[in-house]
Amino acid sequence: MSLTSEFPRGLAGVVVTHTALGDVRGREGFYHYRQYSAVELAERRTFEDVWHLMVLGELPDAAALREFTARTAALRALPEEVRAALPAIARASALSGPLAGLRSALSLFGAAKGFRPVYDIRPEQRLADTLAASAVVPTLLTALHRLGQGLEPVEPRADLSYAANYLYMLTGSEPDPAHTRAVERYLISTIDHGFNASTFTARVITSTGADVAACLVGAVGALSGPLHGGAPSRALDTLDAIGTPDRIDAWIRERVLAGDRIMGFGHPVYRTEDPRSRMLRGIAQEFGGPLVEFAVEVEREVEAILAELKPHRELHTNVEFYAGVVMELCGLPRDMFTPTFAAARVVGWSANILEQSQDSKIIRPAARYVGVEAPQFVPELG
Amino acid sequence: MSLTSEFPRGLAGVVVTHTALGDVRGREGFYHYRQYSAVELAERRTFEDVWHLMVLGELPDAAALREFTARTAALRALPEEVRAALPAIARASALSGPLAGLRSALSLFGAAKGFRPVYDIRPEQRLADTLAASAVVPTLLTALHRLGQGLEPVEPRADLSYAANYLYMLTGSEPDPAHTRAVERYLISTIDHGFNASTFTARVITSTGADVAACLVGAVGALSGPLHGGAPSRALDTLDAIGTPDRIDAWIRERVLAGDRIMGFGHPVYRTEDPRSRMLRGIAQEFGGPLVEFAVEVEREVEAILAELKPHRELHTNVEFYAGVVMELCGLPRDMFTPTFAAARVVGWSANILEQSQDSKIIRPAARYVGVEAPQFVPELG
Repeated sequence: MSLTSEFPRGLAGVVVTHTALGDVRGREGFYHYRQYSAVELAERRTFEDVWHLMVLGELPDAAALREFTARTAALRALPEEVRAALPAIARASALSGPLAGLRSALSLFGAAKGFRPVYDIRPEQRLADTLAASAVVPTLLTALHRLGQGLEPVEPRADLSYAANYLYMLTGSEPDPAHTRAVERYLISTIDHGFNASTFTARVITSTGADVAACLVGAVGALSGPLHGGAPSRALDTLDAIGTPDRIDAWIRERVLAGDRIMGFGHPVYRTEDPRSRMLRGIAQEFGGPLVEFAVEVEREVEAILAELKPHRELHTNVEFYAGVVMELCGLPRDMFTPTFAAARVVGWSANILEQSQDSKIIRPAARYVGVEAPQFVPELG
Repeated sequence: MSLTSEFPRGLAGVVVTHTALGDVRGREGFYHYRQYSAVELAERRTFEDVWHLMVLGELPDAAALREFTARTAALRALPEEVRAALPAIARASALSGPLAGLRSALSLFGAAKGFRPVYDIRPEQRLADTLAASAVVPTLLTALHRLGQGLEPVEPRADLSYAANYLYMLTGSEPDPAHTRAVERYLISTIDHGFNASTFTARVITSTGADVAACLVGAVGALSGPLHGGAPSRALDTLDAIGTPDRIDAWIRERVLAGDRIMGFGHPVYRTEDPRSRMLRGIAQEFGGPLVEFAVEVEREVEAILAELKPHRELHTNVEFYAGVVMELCGLPRDMFTPTFAAARVVGWSANILEQSQDSKIIRPAARYVGVEAPQFVPELG
């Protein structure tokens, strides 16, 4: 089958809809949520603030924030039928991984809550469904993780912030405030990022009128693809593989000359440094220590070697590189890196679902048939 | 938010990829799977023949068909961990419906089978994963349905055809051959139909490299949207609502003049009679009886009234109208109409997943930001 394209492969750069949720300006190294710089939001606000901004359209004032925080915190506990199914889901997901577990558990949660088609319910109910689903994602992820480790799940606490409660449910102990704030900044910076494959998936499913769980479960599936959400721990594995500063130069040159991709470097949209990377490097450097020094050194040498060997390409660290370092410093296990991404992105998906559901037109593109000339006679089976 | 479009809403008519799987020729009232008329395939071949055609690229000869039939029939039983979870999934899905149940159960199945990212496995394994998932869809659907009715699931039988085994697992008794063949023809005609929203969803998720279950679960979610798979039983509800032949004229005129959509009529692509509708009407008429006569009379009067009141629109029955009639005649309960659609379409999704996974480029379109001018200063919360 020979494919010649009249359209960019992967629809790269093809505008498929309008959005008021935000944008990525690849040439400027800048991205925003609604009218605010996402990095500034991460530096100055809480996760709940930005969640409110994304799904309700504006930053809350102090009273609205209190109300929204209390409302979402009260949604963290699981319905009994979902809680009862988690051990089986955790066992079944041992091979396919934590996002396969989240996929099953979130699907079951939406069904158990009786989620109905988005076009059949009022906007307030759509919002309520997205809040309910988003609020339980950390509960589901941490419970499945602990069950996989042979530990009992930890019940959520409504007195903690979204980020603090996430770390608390993961470990069962009161989280360190510096770790909490670092993870919170990471989570805020990860809520949304343009029209990535999982966000697009959520919007395509929404356009059929399916319920919020169907949309989110599809998005989780897309995020589980290695080309999308699968890499934050692999960047850290690269650091492990290099091992010591004296081995950086030889290791990197060998990979670059072999044409291998260096995990944690390069992004399809940014032509500059990834703004998330810059922020996360800053967070890592606030913590300091040998891992951070090593990561900074690897970054410096990789960029220098790439500038020498591939002078026409601007290649910088992407979000995965320092996200991995920050999560490692905050004590998150590596198999929870991509799930942690999901715990933030679910808010972005939710905002996209709410926006898409204002338009009742199904997304139904076309494909060009390039197979054998049709029709041919169908022989009866002899 | 005012949206002006430089692109067709819903991407209607926008070619997003090439395919060798088939096409819909809306102006000709014709659709095909690979090089064969889909309706001819439904009339002359078995479901397994066409499944083989879709995922392996050619119609099997007698020996290949025996082998493929035996291979897929052997895959119908559920792993113990999935079987054990079905009662909980059935209870949880009582409100959201059978496709929410399938979504959860198929997600769990893929995890339990340890499905791995499509780009990390060889084509033979991808095929095996799609066969495994497709083969259990009837088992999952019928088991969830029976559990919801307070009945024990019926174990699959490997000696029956795909269609016969589906009816057998639903009722627990040997299916009538005429019903089996009618359902089989419906299933074949429903395997694929151009680049609909669920097929597109499956391909977007595949493009991230996610596993086969993630792709199929997303597609099931899209199919659960009322604008996509949600209507076959509603067309039959229309017949019920009209009630008797003497009420047709007044009922239809009232709806048309009120601007209501008549369920079971109209299709976004066909400008002629839907070829599936024509075939299914033929099947219904082979059975005959008062429901069929009534349906034919409703169709005739609706088309006449529409020709009179809306002379510029060609509006014909779509697949849902006679599909509902045929499924009712074959004893399928109405809440299994859309699930039965899914039991066929899973093969089409599978073929699309296999085709998409030959291309390792992520599908990542863009959106145009139309919100408030960014960036604005993020105030610290006072």
